[in-house]
Amino acid sequence: MKGIRHLAEHLDVSIGTVSRALNGRPDVNEETRKRVLEAARKFGYVPNQSGRSLRQGTTNIIGFMIQTGTEITGQGDTFFMSVFDGVQEVFARHKLDLVALLCSSQEDPTEYLRRAVARGFADGLILSATQRHDARVQLLAERNIPFVTLGRTLTDAGQPWLDLDFEGMAQSSIDRLVARGHRRIAITRPHDDANLGYIFVERCREALAAHGLTLQENLIFRSTPNEAGGYQIGRDLLALDQRPTAIVLINEMIAIGFYRALSEAGVSPGSDIAVIGRHSPHAHFLSPSLTCFRLSLHDLGVALAQTLLSSMPTFAHHYPDAPANRLWPMELVDGESDAFRARES
Amino acid sequence: MKGIRHLAEHLDVSIGTVSRALNGRPDVNEETRKRVLEAARKFGYVPNQSGRSLRQGTTNIIGFMIQTGTEITGQGDTFFMSVFDGVQEVFARHKLDLVALLCSSQEDPTEYLRRAVARGFADGLILSATQRHDARVQLLAERNIPFVTLGRTLTDAGQPWLDLDFEGMAQSSIDRLVARGHRRIAITRPHDDANLGYIFVERCREALAAHGLTLQENLIFRSTPNEAGGYQIGRDLLALDQRPTAIVLINEMIAIGFYRALSEAGVSPGSDIAVIGRHSPHAHFLSPSLTCFRLSLHDLGVALAQTLLSSMPTFAHHYPDAPANRLWPMELVDGESDAFRARES
Repeated sequence: MKGIRHLAEHLDVSIGTVSRALNGRPDVNEETRKRVLEAARKFGYVPNQSGRSLRQGTTNIIGFMIQTGTEITGQGDTFFMSVFDGVQEVFARHKLDLVALLCSSQEDPTEYLRRAVARGFADGLILSATQRHDARVQLLAERNIPFVTLGRTLTDAGQPWLDLDFEGMAQSSIDRLVARGHRRIAITRPHDDANLGYIFVERCREALAAHGLTLQENLIFRSTPNEAGGYQIGRDLLALDQRPTAIVLINEMIAIGFYRALSEAGVSPGSDIAVIGRHSPHAHFLSPSLTCFRLSLHDLGVALAQTLLSSMPTFAHHYPDAPANRLWPMELVDGESDAFRARES
Repeated sequence: MKGIRHLAEHLDVSIGTVSRALNGRPDVNEETRKRVLEAARKFGYVPNQSGRSLRQGTTNIIGFMIQTGTEITGQGDTFFMSVFDGVQEVFARHKLDLVALLCSSQEDPTEYLRRAVARGFADGLILSATQRHDARVQLLAERNIPFVTLGRTLTDAGQPWLDLDFEGMAQSSIDRLVARGHRRIAITRPHDDANLGYIFVERCREALAAHGLTLQENLIFRSTPNEAGGYQIGRDLLALDQRPTAIVLINEMIAIGFYRALSEAGVSPGSDIAVIGRHSPHAHFLSPSLTCFRLSLHDLGVALAQTLLSSMPTFAHHYPDAPANRLWPMELVDGESDAFRARES
């Protein structure tokens, strides 16, 4: 509050008068208002948001919490920047600013979020990388902070969520591969307790069972969602006595490392093994081209923002039709990588 | 302050007592302190940082302002996530949290920053994408907010900065290409008033002049720093009556679109034109391999963080040797893309 006191002293008026003038209240003499605004401009006075948010209870900032660290992001991010773009398109209409809360993979996400909440600088939050059980959901629900999760979790506080349709991806991948004669099908899941891993594995298991097949535990590969993780899967798969004839990769970036491991061993996707993955900007560069599931990240960002705002009293009336929960479809893009057909055994 | 008032009412003690107990002051009865802490835990009370930062003047948050929007980031980011990683490694030692301030390319960066500053939630700032003249520097200097810029600018408030050695890149590229017989050399610069464009163009001009050559204005291509920008450069270059025999690409991602445009026209880097660019994770995928300038983004992040902290009174003693200004070297990695030699004309 140092700034406002200096202004008051300089103008020889009370602090209250300066405050009222700066806040556009009617009970200030017009000439005084002009003098105050002029002096504020001259001295570069900016209202301190710490004081403001105590009074108004809003900061007009929304935080988007993402995981960082090379273990997660590998050599960059090709997902969140596009999602941010969609989110910002919606927030701009309401003069809301988006900040990314960068939680290092070295940190406990709940402790990180507890600190961010204590700092009280966001009016609402978007959480990503939801875990099977996610204490962050409970934390925000208790604190009464509006939030939406990108991803589901078993921790249920009635929160709004959007999630990619991993069930749909599992079902179509398995049906497609089985129709092409595959019986030994490998799948991948995240290295951590990400909820999507559980959903994906379960639906793959069910889809295989519907064809009279069993998901073999040693054909479920865990990996970090980056190139290095994909390379390791490739090496591990090639080392198996009885190799699978097909694999479904759950993350975008692992296809790149997986291709590299195969290539080093002279094994070719599409000719020697069927591969289905997720779309990324890198998919163009892969040869043979990757059969993959694609979605509009920008549109996902728009929907995330709308769902969050529909849960905030100030903005809800703008988004009466935004669904509180939504499975986001992914589209299968044909490539060459799953052209390989297994011989009936 | 709602939380603390509720606690006081519930415990039937004064707000001051609750506050003193929560802040670990000695002038509180031990039994009262226990009751307060227990109730705080039970009701999930978290001290509101808005109140706290007014008293303590610190938030332990550092903001890193980056530009977003597809026009800038194209299909993702392969630069900042790695820089963030290095920054966070240093900040973690001091319990500082990094947040990314995402300024959409649709917005005026100075207005955006003015708002962020008004919200007062960061103890320090890192600015990127510095422009030739950058009003953000003046703004932060006037507000007395510690900051460092990634990139130089003519706007001089004595601020600390780190920048990539674009002079070195210009000099070695030109020397190398001239040594291989090139006389018609094209270069690229950013679409906007980014300071690095001025530095790069000027040094290329000087380096050419030292060889008795002239930088031709129609061989300076402007583009957004993404794949689409590179594609457009490729198209424009191919449409010239008299094509250059070599080109130096200033941004990472433009090589990808540039290669694509050449490939569509049956023109091959390394065989038909010499190309030098910047390293990115995508460089692996380019064929023929790209001769490019590379740097450790993680180490750059570490240095940025140290330079910022060395300018903050609380942390300066930890980093007595951090230089306030620093040109960060880039290493030339040999590839096949500049193997083409021009015939002496």
